[in-house]
Amino acid sequence: MVKKRTRKPSAVIAERIHRCRAEMAKNKLWAYLLTNRPDHYYLAGFSGEDSALLVTRKAVWVISDGRFEESIRKECPWATVTLRKGQLAAEIGMVCKRLRLKAVGVQTDHLSIDEHAAIRKAAKPTRLVKAPPIVNTMRLCKDQADLRALAEAIRVAEEAFKATRRSIRAGQTEQEIAARLEYEMARRGSTGPAFPSIVAEGPNAALPHAVPGRRKVRRGSAILFDWGATVGFYRSDLTRVAFVGTIPPKIRKIYDVVLQAQVKAIEAIRPGERMCDIDAVAREHIAQAGYGKQFGHGLGHGLGLDVHEPPALSWRSDQKLQQGMVVTVEPGIYLPGVGGVRIEDDVLVTAKGCKVLSHLRKDIASAVVR
Amino acid sequence: MVKKRTRKPSAVIAERIHRCRAEMAKNKLWAYLLTNRPDHYYLAGFSGEDSALLVTRKAVWVISDGRFEESIRKECPWATVTLRKGQLAAEIGMVCKRLRLKAVGVQTDHLSIDEHAAIRKAAKPTRLVKAPPIVNTMRLCKDQADLRALAEAIRVAEEAFKATRRSIRAGQTEQEIAARLEYEMARRGSTGPAFPSIVAEGPNAALPHAVPGRRKVRRGSAILFDWGATVGFYRSDLTRVAFVGTIPPKIRKIYDVVLQAQVKAIEAIRPGERMCDIDAVAREHIAQAGYGKQFGHGLGHGLGLDVHEPPALSWRSDQKLQQGMVVTVEPGIYLPGVGGVRIEDDVLVTAKGCKVLSHLRKDIASAVVR
Repeated sequence: MVKKRTRKPSAVIAERIHRCRAEMAKNKLWAYLLTNRPDHYYLAGFSGEDSALLVTRKAVWVISDGRFEESIRKECPWATVTLRKGQLAAEIGMVCKRLRLKAVGVQTDHLSIDEHAAIRKAAKPTRLVKAPPIVNTMRLCKDQADLRALAEAIRVAEEAFKATRRSIRAGQTEQEIAARLEYEMARRGSTGPAFPSIVAEGPNAALPHAVPGRRKVRRGSAILFDWGATVGFYRSDLTRVAFVGTIPPKIRKIYDVVLQAQVKAIEAIRPGERMCDIDAVAREHIAQAGYGKQFGHGLGHGLGLDVHEPPALSWRSDQKLQQGMVVTVEPGIYLPGVGGVRIEDDVLVTAKGCKVLSHLRKDIASAVVR
Repeated sequence: MVKKRTRKPSAVIAERIHRCRAEMAKNKLWAYLLTNRPDHYYLAGFSGEDSALLVTRKAVWVISDGRFEESIRKECPWATVTLRKGQLAAEIGMVCKRLRLKAVGVQTDHLSIDEHAAIRKAAKPTRLVKAPPIVNTMRLCKDQADLRALAEAIRVAEEAFKATRRSIRAGQTEQEIAARLEYEMARRGSTGPAFPSIVAEGPNAALPHAVPGRRKVRRGSAILFDWGATVGFYRSDLTRVAFVGTIPPKIRKIYDVVLQAQVKAIEAIRPGERMCDIDAVAREHIAQAGYGKQFGHGLGHGLGLDVHEPPALSWRSDQKLQQGMVVTVEPGIYLPGVGGVRIEDDVLVTAKGCKVLSHLRKDIASAVVR
């Protein structure tokens, strides 16, 4: 069942499709198959699962199934739609053949070996070629619509954190506090945590990916929160530490080091700087304080429709910062058996420097609750 | 950094590894690379991200990074561990070369074209071959540990639903109710919704994948809930409709049809039956009532560490039911602009028939709240 629609896409979507087609033309690519779901939302406003988008010079095809018929009607009534009854690969093949495509560019980073083989078989004689990373590159630098959505995802996460922090009582478990935090986000419009929330008490904070458990907070606890909201499909990502009543001396010491490292790294962010050099600003500060080995992960990562997306703000990357990128800046120090501190903000690279998009205070005094 | 541990895995994990190695031997496969994350938990109890598992005749390697060092210590201290500093593919290649593997089996359904190319390059002269679906097949039929975990994920989802249902008031939005439902699950130990929860009022219930929004419930509302919990990495998946005060006549009619279709399909479940035949039991009942075109999706799917896993309980599959499979049974009727009804339980295939693992009542009288 193929339906041709007539309404027009929004200005934001029209502009993105236009830029995508311009890049396709530069690369002599006349058909571009998108199998990475966030790209469907980015390029067509379409939120469905188990679907594919095919961008040609004349149309944007949504290859989906009956479950998403109503979503398509609401989200992209201007698209050309085909609803499969069988396998997705078969339907993609049918469309390629119908359009007599000689070649179609595929996302080799978001297509499994098996899916690729199935589409290749179904699409014959259309050839599958590796597409250049067109949408990936577009998504690197955020437009105004991206930034509005990100700001809202950050706002919801921050308001929810403030509400949760006020509710912390000795005797609560990490799990209970995490549940409250996610509830406060959801109430404010988050469609789900941006990633599994971390609420880690005491020594659990030494695990960079701790899972909230039955460990109880008590007076004198340091609790690490790493959380984010999803609003309009965009994700925020923040980390703060909260102290219940008093600050453990060992944690106070590393808190100061981490905070200074984070502030220094943020100050260094401007277009043209290399990722590894920004990472090094924080890393050297932490190393000089004697905690070099206790900071095992990269400084940060891109943020948008995915909670981890390019660029990697890491010692491994010599890519340069560009205006419009949004990155997390999140140094940490972890003392196994004792605890850990990580402080994370979401930062937009501007024309001459940067703008911190998150607003929660991070001085140690503000981190004490009760 | 390679660490060899000495402690032994639990009996459940040891048994799974033993069965995996037996299947590997049958297939003359001496090294098996697992890149599908739930398989890491299934076969090694390991919960980390961005990692790989390599099963050989002598060892189980966890190829991970520093963020998961503590998790590995807790979850699989018996494994051989290497923590990468660079890319995952490079570290996998290093291990393959170190072990002088001639060939390694890979999961072509969980490896992108790009990852495959990077591992192939890094692992040379080790060849990558398509592994038979060994773990996929093992996961099809649940063992006692799987079933204990699933029972707990179902229990948490059900208790949370009961608590949420009691709290429904006219004037609340879908979003508020979904937030409450997820909070009630999290409080009871769910580490996150098994999938984005659906709370869909009135006509929104006609969207099989509705997203909870600002639509308000009122007296006379029919609200469709499709939700699940994640407990110990296992997921539940349930659907019920709640009526606020009164039952809309059009919805009552389709409710009866859907419920009868669901009960009939469950009664037909036993080992040896084909998936398409069970699907047909529900589909024919709905078609005979005149709603054939309003039931557009398959009858159900496997459930376990993934919320959608094989087998597909669908008209497309002639695979046979086997003892130990757990499937959802979830027929639905959707009337665009009016509303929809879907009723879903989680069902274990037993030696002679089946056992419904979920316990929430589904007679229409029990669905009326207030």
